[in-house]
Amino acid sequence: MKAISVLGSTGSIGTQTLEIAEEFPEEFKVVALTAGKNLDLLLKQIKVHQPEVVALPEETNVLKLRDLLNDLDLTDRPKQLPELFSGLEGLEIAASWEPADIVITGIVGCAGLLPTLAAIKAGKDIALANKETLIAAGPVVLPELKRSGSRLLPADSEHSAIFQCLQGTPWAENARLSTGIPTPGLRNIQLTASGGAFRDWSTNDLRKVTVEDATSHPNWSMGRKITVDSATLMNKGLEVIEAHYLFGLDYENIEIVIHPQSIIHSMIELADSSVLAQMGWPDMKLPILYAMSWPNRIATPWKRLNLAEIQHLSFKAPDTTKYPCMRLAYSAGKSGGTMPAVLNAANEEAVALFLKEKIHFLNIPKLIESTCEKHINELRLDPNLSDIIYVDQWARKEVQELAQKNVRQFPK
Amino acid sequence: MKAISVLGSTGSIGTQTLEIAEEFPEEFKVVALTAGKNLDLLLKQIKVHQPEVVALPEETNVLKLRDLLNDLDLTDRPKQLPELFSGLEGLEIAASWEPADIVITGIVGCAGLLPTLAAIKAGKDIALANKETLIAAGPVVLPELKRSGSRLLPADSEHSAIFQCLQGTPWAENARLSTGIPTPGLRNIQLTASGGAFRDWSTNDLRKVTVEDATSHPNWSMGRKITVDSATLMNKGLEVIEAHYLFGLDYENIEIVIHPQSIIHSMIELADSSVLAQMGWPDMKLPILYAMSWPNRIATPWKRLNLAEIQHLSFKAPDTTKYPCMRLAYSAGKSGGTMPAVLNAANEEAVALFLKEKIHFLNIPKLIESTCEKHINELRLDPNLSDIIYVDQWARKEVQELAQKNVRQFPK
Repeated sequence: MKAISVLGSTGSIGTQTLEIAEEFPEEFKVVALTAGKNLDLLLKQIKVHQPEVVALPEETNVLKLRDLLNDLDLTDRPKQLPELFSGLEGLEIAASWEPADIVITGIVGCAGLLPTLAAIKAGKDIALANKETLIAAGPVVLPELKRSGSRLLPADSEHSAIFQCLQGTPWAENARLSTGIPTPGLRNIQLTASGGAFRDWSTNDLRKVTVEDATSHPNWSMGRKITVDSATLMNKGLEVIEAHYLFGLDYENIEIVIHPQSIIHSMIELADSSVLAQMGWPDMKLPILYAMSWPNRIATPWKRLNLAEIQHLSFKAPDTTKYPCMRLAYSAGKSGGTMPAVLNAANEEAVALFLKEKIHFLNIPKLIESTCEKHINELRLDPNLSDIIYVDQWARKEVQELAQKNVRQFPK
Repeated sequence: MKAISVLGSTGSIGTQTLEIAEEFPEEFKVVALTAGKNLDLLLKQIKVHQPEVVALPEETNVLKLRDLLNDLDLTDRPKQLPELFSGLEGLEIAASWEPADIVITGIVGCAGLLPTLAAIKAGKDIALANKETLIAAGPVVLPELKRSGSRLLPADSEHSAIFQCLQGTPWAENARLSTGIPTPGLRNIQLTASGGAFRDWSTNDLRKVTVEDATSHPNWSMGRKITVDSATLMNKGLEVIEAHYLFGLDYENIEIVIHPQSIIHSMIELADSSVLAQMGWPDMKLPILYAMSWPNRIATPWKRLNLAEIQHLSFKAPDTTKYPCMRLAYSAGKSGGTMPAVLNAANEEAVALFLKEKIHFLNIPKLIESTCEKHINELRLDPNLSDIIYVDQWARKEVQELAQKNVRQFPK
């Protein structure tokens, strides 16, 4: 039995992680939870999983949660109420909670960075679903991993696929430890991309995109921010940067291939030219479960893949004109240092503006590009954590300012 | 550097093995060869690879080869002429030649069984390209493997794919050793089949099949016998039986899926519902190389797979009416004991008759089915080697007699 700590328990990854823990009670025991503002759902999760500790960023929410817990009927109430903590310090306590064997990091965006670093410093195994940890802070995280012996186990679909395929290679040990060292026998990674909500739209039609269009994903059920990232292909661009840090490959050896059915979750090409692929239905539960159960596999009654029923899998090279965010991500990745943090923060801010209908869909890449260009002269190649946090804040402000200044020149 | 012994060096597998040895001289050294009658090619191979020992079944061919070697110009002649041996004993000497680390078994049909058994008894690692060893003699071979510690490394495309996918699973050790023990975490195997020469023919059109039609494979370049087996899907049926012995799965968990592009070479489904696949161009060299280099992988300059260029992969369930041989193979496999040996021998004999234009293509399954039915009452569930050899001979004679007796009632 593994004890797990779930950071971001009320989000998309968090709820799925807890569903898994509930489905396999012999395998997993939840010892710590952190959430944001969804107290109703958090309360339900506490009742089911009875964690030892719960943390929330805001003190007021901790007080509200305490009241909610005290108001519970005796029949409904956990035998032992969890210890409650607040603030960043509270999140870090939950992330490094001693009894936890593995920490699932499901906090979206840069907010997950510091708690994840706390878990790494505590030497926990990390089921990594928070892309930003590595993308923004790769140069800070990799040395910490080496120092603490903490292992990153990818919990998103594409990197899990690569991780699964790598297990049987002579280079699994390297890759597993996220040393950032290139593995000579791993020649190439192919990240598959569904093509997102607009894969069948012409570049011209993208002028008519609404928020509703951009938040409807054809294959995957995910959060709104990630669904927009999937429509711009920034999601895949960020995954390229993550794969670079996780598996130590140069950017020219990490490719994106459009695969509308989302059945092949990613592929690796080995030195001898053999290609290994991992497949499954588009469901985040399998990669989360694998990160939680690795190196073992747990038998599930989940829907089995049937290729004869699916009949066709198709593939094509991505259209860089249609998806400028992809080019921006490769470029930021190659610049390295603080640039991926800027890219990531600018993207988060631009997508948030789009979701609030403050900017048009097509302005997302424009805002990101301008912000990255402005950062070139300030680029730090070997940043520390303060540098990362500073450029993250700077990029967000920059996007806000750019959006206000230029709001009239963008198409409505 | 690995020392290799090649059984059947002038055949399809043998020549490709020697091409690999020539391409990677730092990795492999050829120490023993056996061949049949193609003395010209064998002579060339001896000049290039300078093996320590060469064996041929027929004494007269050994004498001819000795003359050919003695007639060579001094410039052309190996520094040290190989020792020459003849007969089954000679083949067994080459198969168990002491310096060899690994024996590649490329002899087609049942003729490869005894030399392969000699290699197993000598504790060699076996790169197994001779299907019949396991299919006909599984019940004899598995205990020998256990006794000697010899390891079967599949060198054909489908089983290599499964073997490659299995490497990273918690059950790799079991599967690798061909213990015949079911591996609880391996839920299912999907063997892909191109559908052979007649995949786009209607069942009705099969009445018009000629030898030329049946020996033209759409994807793979292979020997004539195997190409016909591919057209009847008996090839895949035999692979199902081989997979049963290699990976210990029940027959209901070994499936065939038609995949015309032959890019996915086979798949495994694990207990958690994850599916792993191995892909590559249809080229036997890669699986042969992997069996030779396992557990390492050797960097090659071979053509790289590009799915965006291939664009489409398709899949469908096989049509059991069109491919009766598939049903016969499953049925023989489930009967077990001596029945797969009967199936295999009857198939070899029926295909040989077809290639000599003595019977029609559609009579291949009929002859096999009648022969298997006749064997039911004689079935031995725990056969020894003599039983296997006896039923092999019996089945061949039976097919010959049936073909002569019934030749008029089969369509011409």
